[in-house]
Amino acid sequence: MEPVTILLAEDEGLLLTEFEQALTDAGFGVVAVTSGIKAIKHLNAAEPCMHGVVTDIRFREPPDGWDVARVAREIDPETAVVYISGDSAPDWASKGVPNSIMLEKPFAMAQLVTAISQLLNDRSPPS
Amino acid sequence: MEPVTILLAEDEGLLLTEFEQALTDAGFGVVAVTSGIKAIKHLNAAEPCMHGVVTDIRFREPPDGWDVARVAREIDPETAVVYISGDSAPDWASKGVPNSIMLEKPFAMAQLVTAISQLLNDRSPPS
Amino acid sequence: MEPVTILLAEDEGLLLTEFEQALTDAGFGVVAVTSGIKAIKHLNAAEPCMHGVVTDIRFREPPDGWDVARVAREIDPETAVVYISGDSAPDWASKGVPNSIMLEKPFAMAQLVTAISQLLNDRSPPS
Amino acid sequence: MEPVTILLAEDEGLLLTEFEQALTDAGFGVVAVTSGIKAIKHLNAAEPCMHGVVTDIRFREPPDGWDVARVAREIDPETAVVYISGDSAPDWASKGVPNSIMLEKPFAMAQLVTAISQLLNDRSPPS
Amino acid sequence: MEPVTILLAEDEGLLLTEFEQALTDAGFGVVAVTSGIKAIKHLNAAEPCMHGVVTDIRFREPPDGWDVARVAREIDPETAVVYISGDSAPDWASKGVPNSIMLEKPFAMAQLVTAISQLLNDRSPPS
Amino acid sequence: MEPVTILLAEDEGLLLTEFEQALTDAGFGVVAVTSGIKAIKHLNAAEPCMHGVVTDIRFREPPDGWDVARVAREIDPETAVVYISGDSAPDWASKGVPNSIMLEKPFAMAQLVTAISQLLNDRSPPS
Repeated sequence: MEPVTILLAEDEGLLLTEFEQALTDAGFGVVAVTSGIKAIKHLNAAEPCMHGVVTDIRFREPPDGWDVARVAREIDPETAVVYISGDSAPDWASKGVPNSIMLEKPFAMAQLVTAISQLLNDRSPPS
Repeated sequence: MEPVTILLAEDEGLLLTEFEQALTDAGFGVVAVTSGIKAIKHLNAAEPCMHGVVTDIRFREPPDGWDVARVAREIDPETAVVYISGDSAPDWASKGVPNSIMLEKPFAMAQLVTAISQLLNDRSPPS
Repeated sequence: MEPVTILLAEDEGLLLTEFEQALTDAGFGVVAVTSGIKAIKHLNAAEPCMHGVVTDIRFREPPDGWDVARVAREIDPETAVVYISGDSAPDWASKGVPNSIMLEKPFAMAQLVTAISQLLNDRSPPS
Repeated sequence: MEPVTILLAEDEGLLLTEFEQALTDAGFGVVAVTSGIKAIKHLNAAEPCMHGVVTDIRFREPPDGWDVARVAREIDPETAVVYISGDSAPDWASKGVPNSIMLEKPFAMAQLVTAISQLLNDRSPPS
Repeated sequence: MEPVTILLAEDEGLLLTEFEQALTDAGFGVVAVTSGIKAIKHLNAAEPCMHGVVTDIRFREPPDGWDVARVAREIDPETAVVYISGDSAPDWASKGVPNSIMLEKPFAMAQLVTAISQLLNDRSPPS
Repeated sequence: MEPVTILLAEDEGLLLTEFEQALTDAGFGVVAVTSGIKAIKHLNAAEPCMHGVVTDIRFREPPDGWDVARVAREIDPETAVVYISGDSAPDWASKGVPNSIMLEKPFAMAQLVTAISQLLNDRSPPS
């Protein structure tokens, strides 16, 4: 099988590496970027579109992770979305997209893998 | 018991009346408004804050229903949100808030009452 | 709004009347039939297709309710399905369709209305 | 069909009447009692056992509503349980039983009916 | 502890090996077969019965994966069922069993492990 | 990131080691104890409080695992709770806490990791 591709956007290098490793070990193909701008550029260029997005909320400059997820869902309403944040979790109720998961730091790598897997598994088959 | 109060925003008069009647019969207190502007004005003024919001998406002028829900959730992250729409349902995946329900027209009044009841019942008790 | 239409198949006259009344009071449009044959005939002829199916399992002759639900889902994979049964509930795990609800007799009319409403509300918006 | 029977335990007379009316209108058979002692007496005597329990938390004397629910589940692990409370909701996480719903006052009658219906509908069919 | 046993039916050798490895690494005992016939033979002979089934839909000859799952559920209504398919996913709504998961290719191995784990964890304890 | 910490209480040494290894490999920090007494001592002393509890039901002396979970939820109502048991599973419906998972032996290590991850991911973000 070709890989299921996840776009991973995180601007802290150590975390980016740790998350990428966990997702790769779990069998996902990962496109790792370090800003919201690059994330949106990749989403717009990806062919076929990404199956899921794992995104930090705050980057050094806009767009933020809330924007990244909205763009991903405009391109494909079925995209699995996992937000990662240390202090933006309370905004999830007003700024998040439906059927997404907010992982607050700290979390274990198994939580990240379970979150994205569960969201992908819950997508309704095409009709 | 004092009533549970729902803000209902719908600009078509006949529908507004039908929805208000259904919610009132179900035991809810209803504040009915006919535009997004009035909805947001009420949300900001309500004391205590509204328990839920039932909102159409498109009004004659901005803000739209997506904005209404975001404001409601900024004020109270636990607000129950039900969107009503004829043709904006596909945007729910990118513009809706988490743990909300999109009711596409047509729907039966029981679906509206069940939707808002279920969302209110699912809110986690305060800790 | 035009009504949301539910196909109701039940061969006991008293129950058929009671269920039809409960669904109508809840705001649904109901097409009531007394056999699996008539149910499938209606499903094939309905234009637009039915939004939901409430079906007894056993009729005096085949097809049974399991067949009715399968045909409904072949026509529209999003159809809400509620099975009603006195003694066929254990077969639900092997003969039912996914995302359906089995109501075992006895049940209250509110359970029927909640079941069909919840299934309709959970259908993912079109993308 | 014979009725689905719900045990309702609430010591404020006006609320007891209001809840009993809502459940009866929804098609349930209701056994209404005004204390935890009477609730447990009824649970132990009921033949066949009650399908669901709607109970206040605090009564004038012990046992409390947490006890009532535990006894109901010891008799029938599938019993639907809805707790009603003004100020005991925070204890639900440590004192409630699994797969139960806590309704905090105030709530609309539709929330009570939806809660008990949803719990009854979610019970797995017997195997 | 003795292992939890999963029946895995897949007729492409490379995929069979990959799935078997992923499930074994996750701690499951796996019985791997290459056809629907062999799958059903194993289900009928297994003592005690299999805890879960992971099955491809199409095999070189009947029975297909829909049949395999139905037989598994007739033997044990609590069996966890995961379907795997490239192009049969749209039929899940009419041919699948309730409380099952359809994994469409491509998927990551973590999705397979999460799917079967989640289904096993959701089974209600015996009463 | 600092680790997410799970309290693991199990009195059989081989199982304790196996569970600890699985949770550690999944990225969790684990505090392993061999009795209910020690578990409750750790819960009361932990600063900050434990994110989750994985507990056997029966220990050589009281308190049992039901008590451990109740204490954990009194300290933090959001604590993720997974019970492990060979023969106490039927009591979960009356003695368990809400939003907990009962894992009956035998189970695969992936089920344990998925259970605790899913419960942690489902906790509502703070508001």
